[in-house]
Amino acid sequence: MNLVETICADLAAIRKRKPLVHSITNFVVMNETANATLCIGALPIMSHAIEEVEEMVGIAGALVLNIGTLTPDWIDAMELAGKRANELGIPVILDPVGAGATRLRTTSSKRLLRDVKISIVRGNAAEIATLAGIAAEVRGVESMGTSAEPEEIARQFASVYGCTVALTGVVDIVSDGGRTAKISNGDAMLGKVVGTGCIATVIVAAFAAVNKDAFAASVGGLVAMGIAGEMAAKISGDRPGTFHVELYNALHAISEADVRAGARIEI
Amino acid sequence: MNLVETICADLAAIRKRKPLVHSITNFVVMNETANATLCIGALPIMSHAIEEVEEMVGIAGALVLNIGTLTPDWIDAMELAGKRANELGIPVILDPVGAGATRLRTTSSKRLLRDVKISIVRGNAAEIATLAGIAAEVRGVESMGTSAEPEEIARQFASVYGCTVALTGVVDIVSDGGRTAKISNGDAMLGKVVGTGCIATVIVAAFAAVNKDAFAASVGGLVAMGIAGEMAAKISGDRPGTFHVELYNALHAISEADVRAGARIEI
Amino acid sequence: MNLVETICADLAAIRKRKPLVHSITNFVVMNETANATLCIGALPIMSHAIEEVEEMVGIAGALVLNIGTLTPDWIDAMELAGKRANELGIPVILDPVGAGATRLRTTSSKRLLRDVKISIVRGNAAEIATLAGIAAEVRGVESMGTSAEPEEIARQFASVYGCTVALTGVVDIVSDGGRTAKISNGDAMLGKVVGTGCIATVIVAAFAAVNKDAFAASVGGLVAMGIAGEMAAKISGDRPGTFHVELYNALHAISEADVRAGARIEI
Repeated sequence: MNLVETICADLAAIRKRKPLVHSITNFVVMNETANATLCIGALPIMSHAIEEVEEMVGIAGALVLNIGTLTPDWIDAMELAGKRANELGIPVILDPVGAGATRLRTTSSKRLLRDVKISIVRGNAAEIATLAGIAAEVRGVESMGTSAEPEEIARQFASVYGCTVALTGVVDIVSDGGRTAKISNGDAMLGKVVGTGCIATVIVAAFAAVNKDAFAASVGGLVAMGIAGEMAAKISGDRPGTFHVELYNALHAISEADVRAGARIEI
Repeated sequence: MNLVETICADLAAIRKRKPLVHSITNFVVMNETANATLCIGALPIMSHAIEEVEEMVGIAGALVLNIGTLTPDWIDAMELAGKRANELGIPVILDPVGAGATRLRTTSSKRLLRDVKISIVRGNAAEIATLAGIAAEVRGVESMGTSAEPEEIARQFASVYGCTVALTGVVDIVSDGGRTAKISNGDAMLGKVVGTGCIATVIVAAFAAVNKDAFAASVGGLVAMGIAGEMAAKISGDRPGTFHVELYNALHAISEADVRAGARIEI
Repeated sequence: MNLVETICADLAAIRKRKPLVHSITNFVVMNETANATLCIGALPIMSHAIEEVEEMVGIAGALVLNIGTLTPDWIDAMELAGKRANELGIPVILDPVGAGATRLRTTSSKRLLRDVKISIVRGNAAEIATLAGIAAEVRGVESMGTSAEPEEIARQFASVYGCTVALTGVVDIVSDGGRTAKISNGDAMLGKVVGTGCIATVIVAAFAAVNKDAFAASVGGLVAMGIAGEMAAKISGDRPGTFHVELYNALHAISEADVRAGARIEI
């Protein structure tokens, strides 16, 4: 089965099996990523208490760890949930929001990458570069530039950490060290709404919940997210409030036919 | 006065008196439930600090306790606020989000039901069944099935805990042990947006703030919520992002005439 | 340069320089204020960990302290970030949400005003009056009336605390003790969506990030916010859900021509 047909089959599987995606995530995007999870066809659960994360992840199809408004106690909960997910063979997706902007964010990301077996890391060029040991400028949570090309950054990250990386930008790069894909879907409007990176992460997680191949799941998630962004922008034009609303409509409406007609993947 | 006219009078009272609804609630729906509270005509306040909840609840017309992203310290704050509300005769509405999914959620719900006099519990079939001692399957925060009929679950819950239960689903059930009502308002779109259950809870709380009869307030809140859902779906069709926006418009627009024309209640 | 031209120049500067606005804010409005920050042209960062706030504020153009869902540990983080901002000459904008409603909110606001050099306080009449020692009634986070006129309250506040005050209401008042401006922009729909006061605060902060004159920045932020509210209401009419969406569209679309044509400022 080629990659586009795999994405279509995974999209159908998400909607049929409705996997639970457990997110330990930041306060800014909790509602938004929960709604995006639901729109693509999965079920969201947000839960961060040390006392329940291990039990909750036990019924999940994927676990998302997003450090966007981290404090040390939340990182502890992420580590606990991540280790339990590892024992159960549940894929763990890390979103290292703002890695490179502060020491806490960089060291917390590295700690999670060391202590938990992460399947997929989804981040922007500066976050991924920082963690791969490549110079980069992060401004808050925005990537402002790196000293290497995204493809090189992604490959180096994958080889350093032995996991799949989903690096998003004007062109998205997915690499597991061996295979590399470039995805040209998406729209500039995605940069005008807060949390679309975090939403991309949960969409990738929904795909990972139905496909053990982290590379294929990452490509699937980013293609679906990118096409949904294009569908939303076609309606909204340059209106970010409207785009935000239409993004949920598009994540819910996106069909296998949309994927077949719209996927722009280069291997 | 029949029940529909009571609902109309309560809706008018909410808009005239603008009661303060104090919510100690989950991070996922704070903005959404605050906006819904405001749209129906009440004033929302979110406050969870141990140092101020007793003082804050003292100026409120109703208190909502929602355990959706609970940690033990938040449950402590809920108990403190709840006990103060009891002393002052302010109705307390509990939303036991995800009871049955983890031990922490189940035991925290039971602790609040034991230590605080709860007026109304609003939950889905699996949450209510779990707490009533009836077998049920919860997946994250979704009800996946129970071993009894909703009416039976609601009646058993009301008799075990001596409070009113507002069990929402395809058909909503309100029971105080003695009286039981079935409400057929609502739309499938309500299941496609995160937090509509939590929104139903604050709408019920707004009604409870103006009507001491917990049974009538629960029916009123669920009828208003259900009709608003129908009004929103008529505009949005199968677009969850648009439905979400229209739901606030509908909660703000819903009139006594809409209630008289649209209420589908069976006693 | 007259004040309207200053506002136009500041708006252009925000969009060109994209200053980072660091918010330590409440859970209810985190997403909404982040999106508003982005829409006006600045970059939002939300971060509250004691371990990173000093480092994060070091790369920011302005710091927002909003006590809407305060707990003592968050106030500690605000103080730490505020003091570091003071050392670096970064303007600090305080939003004392609900000051007057509980002792915790009043004393925490006063503590921040004492221990941090605040550039601008943005609040409603009751919050500002309470802190200035003037009788007022607060209901949750709503101003229900004061014993003095807004202009008098603003002037007294500015003279007590030696900072600029941006008091929002039907007519907004900005005063630095010496200069006073009355701004008649805005729309009643702003009162029908939760968090528009908090949004006004971050818009003021974006202006403060590009203009050292706190008085001009406050006027600029409130004028931009008020005109955006008018633009949104023209499209939404009396539909709060739609108004909320259109508010982001308007904050993104507002042009220097809109400011020149629409600003209603009286000095």
